[in-house]
Amino acid sequence: MAVGTLSPVDQTPPAQWHGVPEFLALLAYGELAAYYRLAEDAALAPTLAGKAAIARMGAAQFQHFETLREALAARGADVFQEMTSFQPVLDMFHIRTTPSTWLEALVKFYVGEGLAADFYLEIADGLPPEVAAVVKDVLTDRAHAQFVVEPVRQSVLASPKERSRLALWARRLLGEAIAQAQTVLASREELADLLLRSSGNLNRIAQLFDEVTERHQERIRLLGLED
Amino acid sequence: MAVGTLSPVDQTPPAQWHGVPEFLALLAYGELAAYYRLAEDAALAPTLAGKAAIARMGAAQFQHFETLREALAARGADVFQEMTSFQPVLDMFHIRTTPSTWLEALVKFYVGEGLAADFYLEIADGLPPEVAAVVKDVLTDRAHAQFVVEPVRQSVLASPKERSRLALWARRLLGEAIAQAQTVLASREELADLLLRSSGNLNRIAQLFDEVTERHQERIRLLGLED
Repeated sequence: MAVGTLSPVDQTPPAQWHGVPEFLALLAYGELAAYYRLAEDAALAPTLAGKAAIARMGAAQFQHFETLREALAARGADVFQEMTSFQPVLDMFHIRTTPSTWLEALVKFYVGEGLAADFYLEIADGLPPEVAAVVKDVLTDRAHAQFVVEPVRQSVLASPKERSRLALWARRLLGEAIAQAQTVLASREELADLLLRSSGNLNRIAQLFDEVTERHQERIRLLGLED
Repeated sequence: MAVGTLSPVDQTPPAQWHGVPEFLALLAYGELAAYYRLAEDAALAPTLAGKAAIARMGAAQFQHFETLREALAARGADVFQEMTSFQPVLDMFHIRTTPSTWLEALVKFYVGEGLAADFYLEIADGLPPEVAAVVKDVLTDRAHAQFVVEPVRQSVLASPKERSRLALWARRLLGEAIAQAQTVLASREELADLLLRSSGNLNRIAQLFDEVTERHQERIRLLGLED
């Protein structure tokens, strides 16, 4: 049984560790799934330099996975056991957002990582400080994704058609990410609890989606994809 | 034009850098190709722990690629330009040795990395010392492949049929690796020169294949696959 799991009828205040293993495991599976998704998408890369840039992202993602695995192990939890239940919903996100061109793949790396970081950083505020520090380190290590910005900007400047195609794609990524986050929060009350704990505000979930959408728009502008 | 490349008719003694960019680029492409090959083979992994172990190998391989890329860059050579010509022969090796089961994949990771290290370490003796040190660091960093030994041993102890199937597979890997090495040495005389420079012995190439075969047999015994 997972450390700190409470049954649904338990009305005692959440312990410090309530929801934490689930949250770390969700992040860990996100990193591992992204590693393999990136490797598959790299088949779209037109050059070996593109393939190497993707492998660089993959290696960073694996390091994040290791950090999270160790944080769980240090607290007596097994990452493989904890993350199994998140596999279907995260795999579904990737199946529903399989890029068909290299530019779509680039936009997905950049926008997808940003969306995930925004969601997870909000929840991280409800974590015990020492766990929050680990999570923030992992989520803010995104320098390896910056290589995306210039090629996407140049392509959309050169082709209005590409621009509108990629703008639609980015909107679809946002929609799928929100749908996925809603599914996770609805099905795993420990995670919803963690989010509420960070704010003490019952409207927090609706606000979260507004904020994530706003930050998504900033990234979209940076890529030259604003409507 | 590649740094230090000599034309075939040039009879002057080889410069220190002769063959070195080609050799580093061959290694670099080997690491990148293995990264992507591993990611594909991980689809055969029966568990998330298996997938994570493969990603751990992949992350190590990417670090090796980076080390080699930097060693080339420090000498004014571009890894992407240099490695293009090795792509067909290394890709062909992987196409001809695509595993069809998880155990075949495990044996390939272990045996394939060992074979590559044996070949390349022999050639590395002909390198300028500071380059040899980089190459030896990369090639001897193989701890991440050790996870293969126990599951393979256990499977072949439990099933003589599996044992004879995997023994054939390992022999095929050896044959394909030697064929690939012969192709590379025959088509890139800078690399053959490097090998001869390390020994000063014209029979060196035949000896190399004998030694590589012998060390392959040791690995095969370790995996419980001896004939």
